[in-house]
Amino acid sequence: MPTYMRIPYEIAQRFCQNVFNSHGFSPEESAKITDVLLAADLGGIESHGIQRLVRYDAEIRAGFVDVHAQPETVFETPVSAVIDAKDAMGQLISYEAMEAAIRKAQTSGIGMVAVRNSNHYGIAGYYTQMASKQDLVGICMTNTEAIMVPTFGRQAMLGTNPIAFAMPADPTDYLFDASTTVIPRGKLEVYKKRGTPVPKGWVLDENGLDSTDAARVLDNIIAKRGGGILPLGGSGEENSGYKGYGFGMLCEICTAVFAQGATSDLIYKKEGKAEICHFFAAFDYGIFGDKAAIRSQFSQYLQKVRDANKAQGQERIYIHGEKELEARGDRMKNGLLVNEKTLEEMRSIAARQGVDASELDAIA
Amino acid sequence: MPTYMRIPYEIAQRFCQNVFNSHGFSPEESAKITDVLLAADLGGIESHGIQRLVRYDAEIRAGFVDVHAQPETVFETPVSAVIDAKDAMGQLISYEAMEAAIRKAQTSGIGMVAVRNSNHYGIAGYYTQMASKQDLVGICMTNTEAIMVPTFGRQAMLGTNPIAFAMPADPTDYLFDASTTVIPRGKLEVYKKRGTPVPKGWVLDENGLDSTDAARVLDNIIAKRGGGILPLGGSGEENSGYKGYGFGMLCEICTAVFAQGATSDLIYKKEGKAEICHFFAAFDYGIFGDKAAIRSQFSQYLQKVRDANKAQGQERIYIHGEKELEARGDRMKNGLLVNEKTLEEMRSIAARQGVDASELDAIA
Repeated sequence: MPTYMRIPYEIAQRFCQNVFNSHGFSPEESAKITDVLLAADLGGIESHGIQRLVRYDAEIRAGFVDVHAQPETVFETPVSAVIDAKDAMGQLISYEAMEAAIRKAQTSGIGMVAVRNSNHYGIAGYYTQMASKQDLVGICMTNTEAIMVPTFGRQAMLGTNPIAFAMPADPTDYLFDASTTVIPRGKLEVYKKRGTPVPKGWVLDENGLDSTDAARVLDNIIAKRGGGILPLGGSGEENSGYKGYGFGMLCEICTAVFAQGATSDLIYKKEGKAEICHFFAAFDYGIFGDKAAIRSQFSQYLQKVRDANKAQGQERIYIHGEKELEARGDRMKNGLLVNEKTLEEMRSIAARQGVDASELDAIA
Repeated sequence: MPTYMRIPYEIAQRFCQNVFNSHGFSPEESAKITDVLLAADLGGIESHGIQRLVRYDAEIRAGFVDVHAQPETVFETPVSAVIDAKDAMGQLISYEAMEAAIRKAQTSGIGMVAVRNSNHYGIAGYYTQMASKQDLVGICMTNTEAIMVPTFGRQAMLGTNPIAFAMPADPTDYLFDASTTVIPRGKLEVYKKRGTPVPKGWVLDENGLDSTDAARVLDNIIAKRGGGILPLGGSGEENSGYKGYGFGMLCEICTAVFAQGATSDLIYKKEGKAEICHFFAAFDYGIFGDKAAIRSQFSQYLQKVRDANKAQGQERIYIHGEKELEARGDRMKNGLLVNEKTLEEMRSIAARQGVDASELDAIA
């Protein structure tokens, strides 16, 4: 297992902003991208945090991400819009799209914005929280490169297709953010590195049969030999894997179909371009009545769930979003947890981009 | 296992309508309730079909379902409404609520209607299809009596909380309709009758530990001793059971919280009244652009999924809703499949209500 270092938030923030600046983004743009990126590390979601910097850096240098993209709103109504991102940085167009959804929600009660031809956008939950911070309900989805095998298939046709949902509550907002597969790809990579078998029900081999061999399945995915990750609910019908496949399809409809962009099976197929699609919705729960009363009832119900009887051996029932919030408290105080390989990548990017990395040297 | 009889659709339809008429519903109301009820049997979803007649009959006689209820719209905007069903028959108020959502979608692009103080409404998919038949997207959810144990808990706090979603497509509309638990309660009852153990990962015992004993878990549920059915994804965190728990919470928010009615833990708690909450949404996918182009792209993607490589030993990848559609073809031609116990209940209801059952006698 890799060694982890603690990097103070401000140092990581400055470093990332300088890297994005060096690629030609404006300081304001770099700050936005960095905010989304580090929100993942703050929440303990390493897979979507600073360890992705190396990938973003490569995609920007290759021109797959267009630093000077001019996204275009191609269709609009008072409650909706479709944006062609024109290969813009995912975080930037997503920030804009959710802002548009929020404005529509504030005037029409609800706003839904679908985006096509975009790139990886970080954690879905970030955008739903933009809405919940405005006392609105937020919904966000994205499709991704195909990796989910539909029930009874052996060929990945849907992405991990996360669905996120935020609803204001006290003492803290409710935030659900989850892929519709059993596990994300990153978890498979961890098992491959460890060399230990994965539990049955997570992945399928190239013949569409249950497998516990993380390395083989990952190699198959890369070589496009078939197989992949199972939908939430697992293999076949016994544990209702067709439900995860259905929630994945819901994501595909809201993103690729509404945006009239690439479905997951087509992502990263055109000369290295991602062509990812997103979906952002915001609505004012005041369209259902008195907001204070609604918020209070919901908060009381969440407290009842927290206080419900625990399983033998368990001490706590979590409300979605609480683990991330507590991780955030720890990371803000004690620094982000960054593994040594990521730190090495950061130094290498800095060297090539001419970015000052002296603050990193002081850490390890 | 019980013996099944085939009952021609028209005979079952006439019979159910006469039963509901005998309870004081108007012929038009009885026809609507029957249409929802038999849509389940036609789709092969026995649990929500004519076998529920005995339960509806009992709830109507007990006065828990108010035949003469006057539901009231307590809050309304151009894109939303909240209806207090005042203990109305679930199918009737749900039909009305989805019609209201459809009207709003046709004028404002989108309509969302939350309902409180209602009763069991049959299959969620029926209402989403009301929207898709009008070339709109349909969404429908309902909470139910608490039976889902949240991750790390041992006390049921959420219902089976189904989520349904319909989107127009060719050659047939897409229809997803699934509970957010691993299995519905009915499946547990089947295993109890058989006396065979259920697979691990479906249910928890009274201590919140994995169990395979269907009879014990059902007895615990009835006696409220703890335990229940697991969220989609199963026990603990290994297979991401917290995701099913999250989708269940999404349903709870859209139904009970938006309608400001009873959350699942409070259902059937007040003198036998159900006080169930529903959520209906419809929107015109034309708010995202050219409908023909959107529909065509979606239909082509679904065809690619159908045509994708099959797992070894499998011959077909199903699109959600196809199994139900094929069952419907069979049932319309060859009759509904009704088990002998249900047929016996139908005869007993007929005798008490003074409804002619001679057409049933001719069958078996």
